[in-house]
Amino acid sequence: MSEKKIIITIGREFGSGGHEIGEKLADRLGIGFYDKNLIELAADRSGLDAATVSGSDEKAPGFFVSPYAPTVSDKLFFAQSELIRHLADTQSFVIVGRCGNALLRGYVDTFDVFVFAPLEARINRIMERYYIESSEKARREINRVDKVRRGYYQYYTEYKWGNHDAHDVIIDSSMFGIDGTVDVLEVMAKKRFGIE
Amino acid sequence: MSEKKIIITIGREFGSGGHEIGEKLADRLGIGFYDKNLIELAADRSGLDAATVSGSDEKAPGFFVSPYAPTVSDKLFFAQSELIRHLADTQSFVIVGRCGNALLRGYVDTFDVFVFAPLEARINRIMERYYIESSEKARREINRVDKVRRGYYQYYTEYKWGNHDAHDVIIDSSMFGIDGTVDVLEVMAKKRFGIE
Repeated sequence: MSEKKIIITIGREFGSGGHEIGEKLADRLGIGFYDKNLIELAADRSGLDAATVSGSDEKAPGFFVSPYAPTVSDKLFFAQSELIRHLADTQSFVIVGRCGNALLRGYVDTFDVFVFAPLEARINRIMERYYIESSEKARREINRVDKVRRGYYQYYTEYKWGNHDAHDVIIDSSMFGIDGTVDVLEVMAKKRFGIE
Repeated sequence: MSEKKIIITIGREFGSGGHEIGEKLADRLGIGFYDKNLIELAADRSGLDAATVSGSDEKAPGFFVSPYAPTVSDKLFFAQSELIRHLADTQSFVIVGRCGNALLRGYVDTFDVFVFAPLEARINRIMERYYIESSEKARREINRVDKVRRGYYQYYTEYKWGNHDAHDVIIDSSMFGIDGTVDVLEVMAKKRFGIE
């Protein structure tokens, strides 16, 4: 839709709808969308086996790792990092997770978003999307996934997960809902990259 | 400009321009603006002496306080709180600081914003606004004021200062500048309160 390169990174709490918001935002702007699909691309480029590494996606290595040999998580992280920067050299896209904001900081101009929502709203979303009938189970799953994401983010970057220090805007998706949040982020993204 | 009540609370890091943004946003929306000016109003209503309490504005009490007798800070805080809720019953406004978001949570519908900016940008703004010639001195002043604000906020509320848990949106004012930030907040505020 534009000659200018648009790169948007989205961090998100589990159950906040950040992934869906990113996907719809990419759609609106007519640009690429990267999430888990980066694994196969990164594996292809680096000779890793996609099936082997997929279990390490967005996870920090375990505790018992050699300080010298890179773990599968490390190899995947480095392959993804290299790929994300390569993509940033050549195209516009939205990337969800994968420390996109930290990896691209100082490398290219990005619009860095973090999406959150009150726990209650996230529990409802998770119950609906994953057919979980117990809100307690949904709450535990939210805590578990957020802990894994926080661990990954803080293992590989110098920033605190969900903190404003590495984001341009942090937004509660429950305020406007999924489409409403896409609306305001679209306004901001266009302003950010000087479109229209 | 509208029949609907619009209440916007703004927290801000020192030097982020949050105060100016709040003032301009209130102007744009044609609604009231409250900041330090609440002191006199609150003092008037509660029989406190404005000159006496002004030194306690947005400050937590010191360490050596009686657990039973309210301090000047406490009295001012309670008087301001009562006044802020009274205002919220009757009019639209933007309020900067004073735990507005926490005080009005669950009381009326609000749009809760926190404005931050990278330290470098804040240093530059403070040097310019307060005619400080040393960036080191500006940095120290930023740390000092933020510490006081954080102390006040965390003394009187259950939230962590600058954290997203009690805000709808947290925004880096250096991304769009003062007027640009007012632009996007105006879009969001109107959307939030269903205007236009």
